[in-house]
Amino acid sequence: MTILKELHWIAIDWGSSNLRVWALDNNNAILDSISSNDGMLGLVTSEFEPLLFERISKWGVRDVKIPILCCGMVGAKQGWVEAPYASVPYNLTQEVDSVKVSFSDDRLNVRILGGLRQDNPADVMRGEETQIRGFLSISSNFDGIICLPGTHTKWVHVSAGEVISFRTFMSGELFDLLSKYSVLKHSVKSDGWNDKEFKSAVSESISNPQKIFSDFFKLRADHLLKQVGQSILRSKLSGYIIGAELAGAKPYWLGQNVVILGNNNLSKIYKTALEAQGIFAQEVDATECTLNGLARAFSLITGRH
Amino acid sequence: MTILKELHWIAIDWGSSNLRVWALDNNNAILDSISSNDGMLGLVTSEFEPLLFERISKWGVRDVKIPILCCGMVGAKQGWVEAPYASVPYNLTQEVDSVKVSFSDDRLNVRILGGLRQDNPADVMRGEETQIRGFLSISSNFDGIICLPGTHTKWVHVSAGEVISFRTFMSGELFDLLSKYSVLKHSVKSDGWNDKEFKSAVSESISNPQKIFSDFFKLRADHLLKQVGQSILRSKLSGYIIGAELAGAKPYWLGQNVVILGNNNLSKIYKTALEAQGIFAQEVDATECTLNGLARAFSLITGRH
Repeated sequence: MTILKELHWIAIDWGSSNLRVWALDNNNAILDSISSNDGMLGLVTSEFEPLLFERISKWGVRDVKIPILCCGMVGAKQGWVEAPYASVPYNLTQEVDSVKVSFSDDRLNVRILGGLRQDNPADVMRGEETQIRGFLSISSNFDGIICLPGTHTKWVHVSAGEVISFRTFMSGELFDLLSKYSVLKHSVKSDGWNDKEFKSAVSESISNPQKIFSDFFKLRADHLLKQVGQSILRSKLSGYIIGAELAGAKPYWLGQNVVILGNNNLSKIYKTALEAQGIFAQEVDATECTLNGLARAFSLITGRH
Repeated sequence: MTILKELHWIAIDWGSSNLRVWALDNNNAILDSISSNDGMLGLVTSEFEPLLFERISKWGVRDVKIPILCCGMVGAKQGWVEAPYASVPYNLTQEVDSVKVSFSDDRLNVRILGGLRQDNPADVMRGEETQIRGFLSISSNFDGIICLPGTHTKWVHVSAGEVISFRTFMSGELFDLLSKYSVLKHSVKSDGWNDKEFKSAVSESISNPQKIFSDFFKLRADHLLKQVGQSILRSKLSGYIIGAELAGAKPYWLGQNVVILGNNNLSKIYKTALEAQGIFAQEVDATECTLNGLARAFSLITGRH
């Protein structure tokens, strides 16, 4: 059995659709990592423990008391163990909330980080708070807006280490539903991209977000009547949706210092959309932020500040 | 073999999801009817003919040259035979466009009515024009707006028998996708209805359509954090979507004479939403309009005005 000699702790990002696990030494350097599509949505409560320990068995963690820290949807009510939401405002540089998973075998030591909640307007995040924590572990004095594009895009107001308020937009999920399951699916079936059409759709939709449901159908009609190409229509669909989101999120980004925390592709699209509104956002890498956030939370929990 | 002695012609509404067939005498009185879920979306071109003649075989139409007239998605490119779109403005009281289905057996006589197209902004309808034709066959002097709620809701400006312009909103399809397939599905799973919550969501969304994508997620958060009931959340989801549609369709209905042409349930919802904006719309029954529209088109085609 291979045991990683320098293994100090294990960081886990366990989301709805994916599982990512990092083996880290005591300087948080990565010794090994695992990535799979064993997302929380495909698992029932009893499956988390055996699945995790099967995946990391090569590191020999059943034999030594290695601390494991998880973030993400694994802490949802339908996940492994529910990790309650903490309320905003919440100081990510000083506070940390987590729950311990209980095992009959006390050599195991697994904690799950809680998400954040906002009561008015009601909103929640689970996983993104760890990414923001990671960003703040590098840029502790950041004051402004963090946009986290994704299935449920978050716009987060951060000041002096605190999450002050946030709003979630279902834009990514809407794009997926419309492009995969709606009458538009044949009209937007393409891997191509047209930046000019995207930007013009963003701008139309920011100015007239109320037209979005008829703009959607217009894509279908443009395809039927004018044979407009699918890569153009896909770019416009994305533009209409992100434009309507930007219209709704305007109180967040207008005149603000904006950071986009996400994966390359989607971040670039949001950056393009914001630039057309005169906002020059900084991009930071989501995976790096996740790992840094887990490391920062681990330090706070273990008292190694 | 039973042959309906008084059978003069057959009217067919063949849509995406349903097939409805009426056997009519020479005064357009209904002798018999058939309804099934053999919608056009589930069929390939070669299946329309055998399916139809199997369904109506009890009327003996293979043995006598009975005229058959169809409307709806059966005339789409992916349907039985493509019936081209006619351009608006289009006079439904005087004009009719249809294509003849060709058979080796010349005793068969099947025609499919074409839809309507608008070039700018690009839009199409297929089936609704027949319902409007039916409405105009009774109310020939109507001048105003016809709203046809459905998967793809249409707002149609009609004057002096002509369709002047129209816009399609994907509201119904969006409601279906969100309530069946999105993260909201558990939060809106209910058969209940709350008119007050619906109306307040309509009004919020008309005033702030740009907030729609965050309003959607707020439903999820209200369910998670405040245990708001599913019938309330379902009513609000419907209200947000219809409110945003009404915001976009305002140039159509504001200060106008509005008729809602649809089925009972959905018409009532739109009527409620419009009443809250001071518009008291008349409801007309969609099935009646469809049959009247097919009858009117049949008269125009056969010259029996």
